[in-house]
Amino acid sequence: MSVNLSNPTTDIKNILAINGINIGVTSAEIRKKNRDDLCVFSFSGASVAGVFTQNRCCAAPVIICRKHLADNQSQNNINGLLINSGCANAATGDAGLADANSTCAELGRLIGCQSDNILPFSTGVILERLPMDRMLSGINNAHKNLAPANPEKWLQAARAIMTTDVVAKIYSAQNTQYKVTGIAKGAGMIHPNMATMLGFVATDAKVKPAVLQQMIAEIADESFNAITVDGDTSTNDSFILIATNQVGDEIDSKNHPQYQEVFSLILQVSTKLAQAIVRDGEGASKFVTINVLGGKTINEAKQVAEKIALSPLVKTAFFASDPNLGRILAAIGNSGIADLDITKVSLIIGSSHTGENILVAENGGRAKSYTADAEKATLKIMQSDEFYLEIGVNRGNASAKKFTCDLGYEYVKINAEYRT
Amino acid sequence: MSVNLSNPTTDIKNILAINGINIGVTSAEIRKKNRDDLCVFSFSGASVAGVFTQNRCCAAPVIICRKHLADNQSQNNINGLLINSGCANAATGDAGLADANSTCAELGRLIGCQSDNILPFSTGVILERLPMDRMLSGINNAHKNLAPANPEKWLQAARAIMTTDVVAKIYSAQNTQYKVTGIAKGAGMIHPNMATMLGFVATDAKVKPAVLQQMIAEIADESFNAITVDGDTSTNDSFILIATNQVGDEIDSKNHPQYQEVFSLILQVSTKLAQAIVRDGEGASKFVTINVLGGKTINEAKQVAEKIALSPLVKTAFFASDPNLGRILAAIGNSGIADLDITKVSLIIGSSHTGENILVAENGGRAKSYTADAEKATLKIMQSDEFYLEIGVNRGNASAKKFTCDLGYEYVKINAEYRT
Repeated sequence: MSVNLSNPTTDIKNILAINGINIGVTSAEIRKKNRDDLCVFSFSGASVAGVFTQNRCCAAPVIICRKHLADNQSQNNINGLLINSGCANAATGDAGLADANSTCAELGRLIGCQSDNILPFSTGVILERLPMDRMLSGINNAHKNLAPANPEKWLQAARAIMTTDVVAKIYSAQNTQYKVTGIAKGAGMIHPNMATMLGFVATDAKVKPAVLQQMIAEIADESFNAITVDGDTSTNDSFILIATNQVGDEIDSKNHPQYQEVFSLILQVSTKLAQAIVRDGEGASKFVTINVLGGKTINEAKQVAEKIALSPLVKTAFFASDPNLGRILAAIGNSGIADLDITKVSLIIGSSHTGENILVAENGGRAKSYTADAEKATLKIMQSDEFYLEIGVNRGNASAKKFTCDLGYEYVKINAEYRT
Repeated sequence: MSVNLSNPTTDIKNILAINGINIGVTSAEIRKKNRDDLCVFSFSGASVAGVFTQNRCCAAPVIICRKHLADNQSQNNINGLLINSGCANAATGDAGLADANSTCAELGRLIGCQSDNILPFSTGVILERLPMDRMLSGINNAHKNLAPANPEKWLQAARAIMTTDVVAKIYSAQNTQYKVTGIAKGAGMIHPNMATMLGFVATDAKVKPAVLQQMIAEIADESFNAITVDGDTSTNDSFILIATNQVGDEIDSKNHPQYQEVFSLILQVSTKLAQAIVRDGEGASKFVTINVLGGKTINEAKQVAEKIALSPLVKTAFFASDPNLGRILAAIGNSGIADLDITKVSLIIGSSHTGENILVAENGGRAKSYTADAEKATLKIMQSDEFYLEIGVNRGNASAKKFTCDLGYEYVKINAEYRT
């Protein structure tokens, strides 16, 4: 059921329609002509949950989404999403809030609901106001072509929300009962001021709003929050989960017999979308999974994984295919765990393609079996476009995973040459 | 009294001898031939204080320094320092500890004290054992040329502790009563596995050991701990303060009338040395001071300064001389202060050379006075090799300063091409 994410020609055969979702897409010419850049979703009676950027400098649409969700989530009174690319409506102050509210009001008027039943999302350049005339006529045009979300509509939507993305990010999964389809945008290291991460995932399952909100928090943690490109989070990051409540009994608690299967389908889709964001970056040449085992708590395992994933020294070593044990050990030592015993730390580097893996460090130093030949083999593993690190800290049973990429010349080039 | 730190030909006229310090330097050929790489200090009756890396993966000499200081500091029983470059003796386990202890014992034997009256320091490649035969004969040679620390001896020592440093880092300051001289090594972004930061600062003032230890903690915070290159701290970082107790009344508390003047001389020397480390890096083309004002607490002001100083997006914008307001605001928003009101944040960018400065942001957005012309002027300020950011968060009266540099192609080149 996987779509080839490194290939821009997404195979529409693998995308699933989700009953209860309508999508309309248009070119509002917000920043560029001749490309779709505005997308509306409509639905009724669906459960909706969301998680948003922790950045205190968050954009107007994020502030409004939080409020509209809080006011309407429990009654299943969210009826539409309004997403534009080209302008992030961030750092625009009260005027930006008023703009976003007006767009919600217009879409609400068209589909027959209140302004606060709509969730708005924007991505693009920051510090600029939305072009309101084009936005409002765009909303009308997108509304005119609203139709049940078949695979083609989903793909149009995935393309309309792209900014600097090279490939559209779309993925579906199903089992005998349920279907899940999601789209996302975000392009790793490219033009990060425009690299807001947006994710929209829908299922036909019937899930109580409060349970869906619990679910999204856990899923975000293992998918969109597990990708770490450079530690900077955007002003507009948002991840929304919609359950159209069309299939099966209502899942009303984590203990419900169907909870786990819905959870794992949504997690599968969300993880693939999140990984696609890391992969999609001219600046990134390698996709690296950091897996930390043996932590006392999940949080400390996360801390170690994140420190490694964010260390510029480690990331430049990834770029150079250099199994630089010293830098990795130093990053682990720097992860802020006060009583970490470095002499108990081990490190394996392995190929994500072949599964071949090599014990590089044990007892906090070079492994005895890590001969010059083993080092050559490790270098070869790291020369491929995808490998993993497995770190054992030997303190307990908690683990955490982060997905990251290397740091090379392209990162500097792209980020130094891009001007807001 | 300033030495031109960007010029390798340090002017020895500006260096001050410190009564009570003896220095001996030799070439032990630890890693390379024909260069001094081993240095011993001896003294007696001096007060000694130290602060060390927080990295849990710390090297054998750091472990031993901590222990020897704890055991002997209060009785002024530290009698010598032993510093080598070329090999960091890090991630070398119990064998590395035994090696370091043996070198302390040998220097102790020569100058007539116990092994635990010596503090050892190593910098260089990690994961390798000290070459003990060459270390031991080197200690004997260095001991033979021990002599009162005149300016030439200080400069020899500053050169002997260099690894990838391009310039020797040495600085003196004095007032009518006291003298302070210090040396340091560490080279910003270059070969960071070898870029251990070491600082040794000596004064002839008379300071009670406990007061000296208080003093070094505060001074480290404003000098060596205020430099941020890439957030990675080394396994061997150490900063030592020696008061030879030759001049003036004993300073026995922070309230002593002479405390403040000694403090500020030492701070001046330590800050210049720390800044020299940021400046000394082929990878760095700009020296940037991040000054955060108006924090509720010093800690939160530090958090904001550090987040800006560490953001790869902000650092690549520095490299490009790009006053990228969006990235800086996003970094501030990301600094982890939960109740930060971004609409109260202001930003000034100024020249460290001319003092010219421009209000770029106010109320969390572009400043009204920040016209296209003002933007051009800001770009010009940032094209120079030294500028500052002044961020007002408008929450209180606490401030913090960080010194950092840009992130350009050279960082990637140097770190990707260097192989441990």
